[in-house]
Amino acid sequence: MSTALDDLRAALPADAVVTDPDRLTARAQDGSATPPSGDPLALVLPAGTAEVSAVLRIAHAHRVPVVPQGLLSGLAGGANAVPGAILLSTERMTAIHRIDHVDQVAVVQPGVVTKDLVDAVAAEGLFYPPDPASYAISTIGGNIATNAGGMRCVKYGVTRDFVRALEVVLADGTVIRTAPGTVKAVAGLDLTGLMIGSEGTLGVVTEATLGLLPAPGPDRGVAATFDSITAALEASNALIAGAHRPSTLEFIDGVVLTALAAHDPEAGLPVGAQAMLIAITDVPGDAGLADVAAYRRIAEEHGALAVDVAHDPERLHQLMRARRALNPAMRAIRGGSINEDVAVPRTRLPELLDRIADIAAQSGLPIGTGGHVGDGNLHPVIAYDPADQAQVAAAHEAHDRILGLAVELGGTVTGEHGIGVEKRGALPGELSARVLDIQRGIKDVLDPLGILNPGKKL
Amino acid sequence: MSTALDDLRAALPADAVVTDPDRLTARAQDGSATPPSGDPLALVLPAGTAEVSAVLRIAHAHRVPVVPQGLLSGLAGGANAVPGAILLSTERMTAIHRIDHVDQVAVVQPGVVTKDLVDAVAAEGLFYPPDPASYAISTIGGNIATNAGGMRCVKYGVTRDFVRALEVVLADGTVIRTAPGTVKAVAGLDLTGLMIGSEGTLGVVTEATLGLLPAPGPDRGVAATFDSITAALEASNALIAGAHRPSTLEFIDGVVLTALAAHDPEAGLPVGAQAMLIAITDVPGDAGLADVAAYRRIAEEHGALAVDVAHDPERLHQLMRARRALNPAMRAIRGGSINEDVAVPRTRLPELLDRIADIAAQSGLPIGTGGHVGDGNLHPVIAYDPADQAQVAAAHEAHDRILGLAVELGGTVTGEHGIGVEKRGALPGELSARVLDIQRGIKDVLDPLGILNPGKKL
Repeated sequence: MSTALDDLRAALPADAVVTDPDRLTARAQDGSATPPSGDPLALVLPAGTAEVSAVLRIAHAHRVPVVPQGLLSGLAGGANAVPGAILLSTERMTAIHRIDHVDQVAVVQPGVVTKDLVDAVAAEGLFYPPDPASYAISTIGGNIATNAGGMRCVKYGVTRDFVRALEVVLADGTVIRTAPGTVKAVAGLDLTGLMIGSEGTLGVVTEATLGLLPAPGPDRGVAATFDSITAALEASNALIAGAHRPSTLEFIDGVVLTALAAHDPEAGLPVGAQAMLIAITDVPGDAGLADVAAYRRIAEEHGALAVDVAHDPERLHQLMRARRALNPAMRAIRGGSINEDVAVPRTRLPELLDRIADIAAQSGLPIGTGGHVGDGNLHPVIAYDPADQAQVAAAHEAHDRILGLAVELGGTVTGEHGIGVEKRGALPGELSARVLDIQRGIKDVLDPLGILNPGKKL
Repeated sequence: MSTALDDLRAALPADAVVTDPDRLTARAQDGSATPPSGDPLALVLPAGTAEVSAVLRIAHAHRVPVVPQGLLSGLAGGANAVPGAILLSTERMTAIHRIDHVDQVAVVQPGVVTKDLVDAVAAEGLFYPPDPASYAISTIGGNIATNAGGMRCVKYGVTRDFVRALEVVLADGTVIRTAPGTVKAVAGLDLTGLMIGSEGTLGVVTEATLGLLPAPGPDRGVAATFDSITAALEASNALIAGAHRPSTLEFIDGVVLTALAAHDPEAGLPVGAQAMLIAITDVPGDAGLADVAAYRRIAEEHGALAVDVAHDPERLHQLMRARRALNPAMRAIRGGSINEDVAVPRTRLPELLDRIADIAAQSGLPIGTGGHVGDGNLHPVIAYDPADQAQVAAAHEAHDRILGLAVELGGTVTGEHGIGVEKRGALPGELSARVLDIQRGIKDVLDPLGILNPGKKL
């Protein structure tokens, strides 16, 4: 009888089935700190839907686990290898099949890098809003797998809001389409939404029909510093309450501000403040200028220490580049970091940040928090020395306490990174036993043998 | 042994269990033309989650079907009675528990009339965008059951885009929450999305956390007439291609225009044109005026016969009131009507409308089409004399042909009304056998006895 590897080699081009241990090791772990749970069997590099279908038929027949992978920018271990798995990479599936002005859609393969799509549609005067911080190194397939967020969600929403329809290969190799790709469609249950954020446990996305918008105006905005987190949060609430809704509204606390200033001196970040807000508008023309004036006024009314008005997109991009370095800048403090992704209702942000400060004090570790304050979605980063076992233990205890805190405040342990393997322990705290049962039931309907990304998400 | 009715009477207040045949008959059929498939057992009027849970525990124990109902404005038979069913009305569940400015959410019971919610949040300077044509007589629960659309989808999206989380009573009476209610949340699978549009087949929504926005500016816009459908569609594409995206973009063809002018003479609709577009902006201030100027210019560039510029919201509301009478105005022509709800990619609209004209000619019946052209979601209405059996047969044949045409053009048989009972026959044309199997599998996970709205949707 043939093995799974035999069958893969018979079904795919020779260079599309990789068993070289070095190449497998390089693909075994995503951007999280969690090591893979075992060695994979092979890496496969299908070029399209038919080859993905062949891989899954073979995996299904041999009951071999399959781990879908993009470019491994994930932060929760969702793309980590599991023992004996086929790593199914989308790296050869980078075609942009269609960009249409009238339908305002792009039809793409899942391996397209998010930034490549953003640039390709921008060249046609169109706009794909989702912009996770990793967008230069993440793929559309990975964004769909985690329902990725980003900086612009406060105005435009998350990845789910821009996915019209998916082509998906099921665990047994069957190819389905979830929806027709129209703006509105209610004939079926929302299988598109079900796939989005399912982290590769329900099917492998092989094509996505994505909604686009006309190109917005240039980015203009303000960066304002405050002498208290409370003042910054009140300013943040005022910024989204009115007629001048920002397209981006980011928060950085004093710990992160200091870390970023050290990490990226060219950005010229002020230090010494307790908090910073960056508010950006992408409304064109005079209306955008009025937005910027409103942001400045609101910051000043809330006692801003300084307001840096940037009518120049370059200055904003410099600030945002610095902001995107949240994780490496915090990690640089002590060599190790755990990056959280909690979200709470905006009304609970003051308590969240107060109690994170308490947790930091009790742990003896620096915890810096930055993120998408307009969405209530923040990234506390716990810095620790990985060589110091006491600090490692304290970091993990602080991590667990922050996850529990988010749920206690009516929120979630993950707003945009996903559960992966890292946060599975927190699921029973957030989701009821019955919801977990329903999720496993749905998994059984779509993947009865449990071969798709086992040990993740659910 | 007690009967289901005994148990319902023991569990609910006396006036919350109704068996009077007249009252049951009044609740047996929604706004569709399809009669119910049989007589219900009882109507129950629970006041809250605990009573809904009690009803479902009893129904589950006795294996009695349950049909969730709002105010019966549905157009596909989704709320129609089935033999021996408990009609579960949300009419007593009209509480608006909370409207919060900082979180920009409303937490409501499902029986709240959509317009009442819109008015309540507007009184607080907030905005709930979804506005199905039925919004004065539909409920939030019904909107969620069908993922209702409306006039403003072209800018704001559908009901799903404004639902953050749901409390749902499952078929066995268990109460779950689908999500924490934060802007972003990816810990679980998207059970919120799964419930939305499921037409009461997967659970009964007892509370919804809805996202809100700051109040927009006043409605201002233009109504433009054209001497060809082609010119109107090209103008429509130009209207949404640029920086002046309308909040509403409606299309009315010449047949509908004539019918509406007869039905609502006060609206002063022009007759004789082949098509009309109504484009509205809700952007405040000078930017909104610039939008209106752009709409006028675009209409004129596309050869508009006349452009009625309405800076006065009252004039626009008059036009929109006339537009909302699409169904009754068309029905008035011959006494009977079938109202379609197809959606196609915008690129396919010219062919859709061309071929509907062919179908009308071949059927010998007036078919008028109006609707949400910016979303590619149109409502062809077939007018016929219900006393003339040949016309009845021709109308149903035309109906089937239009549904098939929408699918052939890469679209859907229903953009916003749902499948109900009326369109179940069209499902195998639109959804693959495997997708239908998956849907039934998910139904089995959530409702293994099949008591929730049997014979609908799936």
